[in-house]
Amino acid sequence: MAVIGASGYGGLQTIRLLLDHPEFEITFLGGERSSGKSWSDVNPFIPIPNNLTIEIPDPDKIAQVSDFAVLSMPNGRACQIVPHLVKRNVRVIDLSADYRFRSLDKWNSVYLNESRSINRKDTALCETAVYGLPEWNCNAIRSADIVAAPGCFPTASLLPLLPFLNQGMIEYDGIIIDAKTGTSGGGRSPKENLLLSESSETISPYGVIGHRHTPEIEQMASHIAGQEINIQFTPHLVPMVRGLLSTVYAKLRDPGLTSEDCRTVLATIYRNNQFVEVLPVGVYPSTKWVRNTNKAFLSVQVDTRTSGIVLMTAIDNLIKGQAGQGVQCLNIMAGLSEDSNLPTNTYYP
Amino acid sequence: MAVIGASGYGGLQTIRLLLDHPEFEITFLGGERSSGKSWSDVNPFIPIPNNLTIEIPDPDKIAQVSDFAVLSMPNGRACQIVPHLVKRNVRVIDLSADYRFRSLDKWNSVYLNESRSINRKDTALCETAVYGLPEWNCNAIRSADIVAAPGCFPTASLLPLLPFLNQGMIEYDGIIIDAKTGTSGGGRSPKENLLLSESSETISPYGVIGHRHTPEIEQMASHIAGQEINIQFTPHLVPMVRGLLSTVYAKLRDPGLTSEDCRTVLATIYRNNQFVEVLPVGVYPSTKWVRNTNKAFLSVQVDTRTSGIVLMTAIDNLIKGQAGQGVQCLNIMAGLSEDSNLPTNTYYP
Amino acid sequence: MAVIGASGYGGLQTIRLLLDHPEFEITFLGGERSSGKSWSDVNPFIPIPNNLTIEIPDPDKIAQVSDFAVLSMPNGRACQIVPHLVKRNVRVIDLSADYRFRSLDKWNSVYLNESRSINRKDTALCETAVYGLPEWNCNAIRSADIVAAPGCFPTASLLPLLPFLNQGMIEYDGIIIDAKTGTSGGGRSPKENLLLSESSETISPYGVIGHRHTPEIEQMASHIAGQEINIQFTPHLVPMVRGLLSTVYAKLRDPGLTSEDCRTVLATIYRNNQFVEVLPVGVYPSTKWVRNTNKAFLSVQVDTRTSGIVLMTAIDNLIKGQAGQGVQCLNIMAGLSEDSNLPTNTYYP
Amino acid sequence: MAVIGASGYGGLQTIRLLLDHPEFEITFLGGERSSGKSWSDVNPFIPIPNNLTIEIPDPDKIAQVSDFAVLSMPNGRACQIVPHLVKRNVRVIDLSADYRFRSLDKWNSVYLNESRSINRKDTALCETAVYGLPEWNCNAIRSADIVAAPGCFPTASLLPLLPFLNQGMIEYDGIIIDAKTGTSGGGRSPKENLLLSESSETISPYGVIGHRHTPEIEQMASHIAGQEINIQFTPHLVPMVRGLLSTVYAKLRDPGLTSEDCRTVLATIYRNNQFVEVLPVGVYPSTKWVRNTNKAFLSVQVDTRTSGIVLMTAIDNLIKGQAGQGVQCLNIMAGLSEDSNLPTNTYYP
Repeated sequence: MAVIGASGYGGLQTIRLLLDHPEFEITFLGGERSSGKSWSDVNPFIPIPNNLTIEIPDPDKIAQVSDFAVLSMPNGRACQIVPHLVKRNVRVIDLSADYRFRSLDKWNSVYLNESRSINRKDTALCETAVYGLPEWNCNAIRSADIVAAPGCFPTASLLPLLPFLNQGMIEYDGIIIDAKTGTSGGGRSPKENLLLSESSETISPYGVIGHRHTPEIEQMASHIAGQEINIQFTPHLVPMVRGLLSTVYAKLRDPGLTSEDCRTVLATIYRNNQFVEVLPVGVYPSTKWVRNTNKAFLSVQVDTRTSGIVLMTAIDNLIKGQAGQGVQCLNIMAGLSEDSNLPTNTYYP
Repeated sequence: MAVIGASGYGGLQTIRLLLDHPEFEITFLGGERSSGKSWSDVNPFIPIPNNLTIEIPDPDKIAQVSDFAVLSMPNGRACQIVPHLVKRNVRVIDLSADYRFRSLDKWNSVYLNESRSINRKDTALCETAVYGLPEWNCNAIRSADIVAAPGCFPTASLLPLLPFLNQGMIEYDGIIIDAKTGTSGGGRSPKENLLLSESSETISPYGVIGHRHTPEIEQMASHIAGQEINIQFTPHLVPMVRGLLSTVYAKLRDPGLTSEDCRTVLATIYRNNQFVEVLPVGVYPSTKWVRNTNKAFLSVQVDTRTSGIVLMTAIDNLIKGQAGQGVQCLNIMAGLSEDSNLPTNTYYP
Repeated sequence: MAVIGASGYGGLQTIRLLLDHPEFEITFLGGERSSGKSWSDVNPFIPIPNNLTIEIPDPDKIAQVSDFAVLSMPNGRACQIVPHLVKRNVRVIDLSADYRFRSLDKWNSVYLNESRSINRKDTALCETAVYGLPEWNCNAIRSADIVAAPGCFPTASLLPLLPFLNQGMIEYDGIIIDAKTGTSGGGRSPKENLLLSESSETISPYGVIGHRHTPEIEQMASHIAGQEINIQFTPHLVPMVRGLLSTVYAKLRDPGLTSEDCRTVLATIYRNNQFVEVLPVGVYPSTKWVRNTNKAFLSVQVDTRTSGIVLMTAIDNLIKGQAGQGVQCLNIMAGLSEDSNLPTNTYYP
Repeated sequence: MAVIGASGYGGLQTIRLLLDHPEFEITFLGGERSSGKSWSDVNPFIPIPNNLTIEIPDPDKIAQVSDFAVLSMPNGRACQIVPHLVKRNVRVIDLSADYRFRSLDKWNSVYLNESRSINRKDTALCETAVYGLPEWNCNAIRSADIVAAPGCFPTASLLPLLPFLNQGMIEYDGIIIDAKTGTSGGGRSPKENLLLSESSETISPYGVIGHRHTPEIEQMASHIAGQEINIQFTPHLVPMVRGLLSTVYAKLRDPGLTSEDCRTVLATIYRNNQFVEVLPVGVYPSTKWVRNTNKAFLSVQVDTRTSGIVLMTAIDNLIKGQAGQGVQCLNIMAGLSEDSNLPTNTYYP
């Protein structure tokens, strides 16, 4: 079991989730910023059994000691190593966006800056990579060589939306997603706007109109709806470390439906998905309720005056929105119970 | 100059703004929770010149020493004293919702719990009270006996929305307001959900569908649009003390309009309103930029793919969203420059 | 296994820690504020297997279904039920201060307000109750009928201090403890000073000179030192939910000792205590490193200029500082491994 | 009036305080990171009258348009330009540490890293520069060519300590300062440990034993006491943007003194210093009370059991701890009232 990108939040989180996993052993830690340092130098607060040294990720070395690799690297970097890993029969869970689009051309256009400096030729890998939303793609994940774990915003937004798109219960036009995330979504590399002094005691929108998660959401939404869907997606930065809330607005086709009806739809579709909890009507999710867990808490409310439906999801952006979902996929790929070693209860408050 | 409700945040804020005002002198402090205590007992950190004692608000006594009264009381309480003040020629700025609806029946239905325990007969006062949004009602405010300062959410949401409704540039149907506020909007009385332990490190929606600011927004929006408008409004509680961000979604009628066009609309309409700042296209407001000021920072972005328009406003919920707007109205009523003693620059960060 | 005081933070935390404990089953939930409600009504975000109803704590009923009871009640309340539980052979872990002093007179004087309204007669129980600091009292805890879990400040302060007192390495005079805690230490009952609006973005001292944890610290320090010790203890409220940092200042008797020497003392004494981690010299503990764990991170630094020794401890005030320590004691009392089901690794950040 | 280092927090704060100053006009903005950009590009939220362009600080150009310069540059940078400014008759307020030590040798040893790469020859300037603590050095500041504004920790720690040292009321040995600061003290340049994700929800000590403010505090304390004094100083990083609390521990020489006695000492000495507020005994300062103001709130408590005295000060680290104190000095140097344009009341909460 290799973890590449070990010192960022995604890697750190993955390692934390695998620490006492009954079936996996971490045998390789890859990283660039921290290569050459031992794990405990960088993270004295989370001891790992053998205190591995962080190494430059070399495919041969990784393949010698690992059947699986979780990659938590910047966009445009995973795709430079994944083909080599796959060739060596290392199955990959990639937490970046590199394999989230079935079409490489699409990726090239959405991740324009990243694509400029590299010349990807892994069209076929993009086509076979599986979008790692286990609640909708479990079977494909099981046998995949490459699983692309979804982005945090797509995870929170698609979970409540897909059932209604799938059933044709909402209008395809005019879907609006207003999402709010904590600062850990911006990563561990220092940036001025993520300093506590700057991001505390304030909220602001960012990436209005052109955020890269928009086409990712649209790809999956369109796939499930069976037709092209455009979505208005606006993320906001919230003064908290972890947590992501997505508030989704759409119009019901049948204005007679009630909140209870819609709750039943969600509860039915997700009845066997232990990480998805559908709240009673009138109870709205708080991100604190899912912090440090792999849960998604969903709620739905219908406004009979406007025929509007309001869908709300809270997740932990670093767990169900990133590393936890990666481990959930890993469990499935390895033939284990999908909840192996994944936390479901928060420490409150 | 009387301030009633002096120990809550609205009253405290009003007093702070009037402290060194060149034209007003605070001569009466009213309150119930704190009556009998001197100001400095309750707030050792903000000295006021004469260290007044907080008193039960008696209309005769107030009228003896004041031409104006700012009321910052719970809903359903201001309306029990306002008729007595008006009869005694005290002009009132009410920060509560009691006079925000022209129709008393409407108030009775929206503030159902409050209306149950009282039997308001001040229909006429409701009809003549002026909705205190100075950027749209300045002339009426000048001569009003009762000004009802708007709610914080309506202020932030109406400022960017009214120009487009007024010009008929957006569709009347399907307007969505997703708003985010700090905890001070919930007041100073202790409540479990507003404890730092509960409300820190989390974001959650509340009052989904039925929030009382919805009909208030709709009343003004309908008035300006010249036709009945229904709005989908969802507030969220954000882990910060002050600040309110409103993100408003609508559809443009003319899909050819650009962000720059729409920015020009806002800039033109508000060119003489010094408290409204329209940001350059691509710059999005952060509530920290307006903290402790009476400013509203507006931004607009158009999505040509969806014909959607995204309007964003940041205000300080306790200043432009409450006490500052009250003082702005007070300045206008007193024939002063509307910006007398109102802060416009924040201390950053 | 009964938990009394289930809806406060101490009770909630205890329940969370016992949720998936391999050896204990929660069979009774006691509470007053929430009695009659089912658990999931109060805490929809943490499901418990059988969704018990919270009941008024009746000793007979508790004794029927439980061998152990964890009490998380206000000071002066536990002592009203503990004698009845002990008589019925229920072994008690009390998270309040009621049994922390061997002398009832001492308790009466320190908890003066509480003692006024009750007339405690359980002198003998006070004398036999064991102070539940497992790193120092493990054997006594094993066979105790009543364990009084230490306060959060005493836990964090005593752990680094006792070794040096025990060895006579520091002067007994002039010990200063400057401690800092998050707001959850103030409990879940709404209080104005604990509102996010009030306690966020600020730090302040409280209880200067007369804090009730002072005599608790002094009792244990004196006991270990073998002589009366007076301590200057000042707590501060920090704008964070969880976490407690204690910075302890004392004078070394032997000015030739180095930081490494003193680190060795700590490391040696705690070498078999898996919840105490002594950091390398120059690494200082951050409360985030122990959040949601039962760990205490210790660090020591010597100033050769002043012969001063600075001891630092970080704990999670609700886990190692309260409920986790309670469960640690419970494990010991039940003859289990003391770390059964107790978390040791945080989710960072 | 020139401000150099305009885009950091010190410069930004200085500019904000000078914005509507009745006697000063900002005529030059100097900076390196942002040189060539207009002010509004960098800070769209604080408009300045003439929207100056930030320029590389050239002494000739500065001298042409300014009588005074406030420098807010990294340590070791101010000293490279100050001699040139002084020669051109520009009077300097330096917010860095470059001129805080009368002895250049001392500076070279304390700021070892900085001194290595430069070879300072301005011994004479160091000797004539005035330590800008106006409450103690007002006369010297008035005629100074160079004022070195004190560090934030020294300001908060010296204000309550100096009166007792001056009067010989406390023992010179065993003084302990435990200080707590918000993250803005760490500046605006991105650093991992100052990210919200890292520094939120945690408190930790740093610079234990060797912090550079120790010798600065000792220099002034020794000067006032008339004898060499060693101090144990430990700073802590608190999850808030602004604010600094210093808790100072010492031993009274006369054990019969009460808290009221000691409060009287402070109140008497500072009776003419409007920025120093001595709180009633039993009221402890909260940094929120002084946020965005130039005030220092002091409190004192005596423990008769231990003869200990506990001194507490709250300031805003960026105002009284930095830029506000700089402007206070500037006012004095310019022969104005020292409180010109300096804020004294916070917006609470």
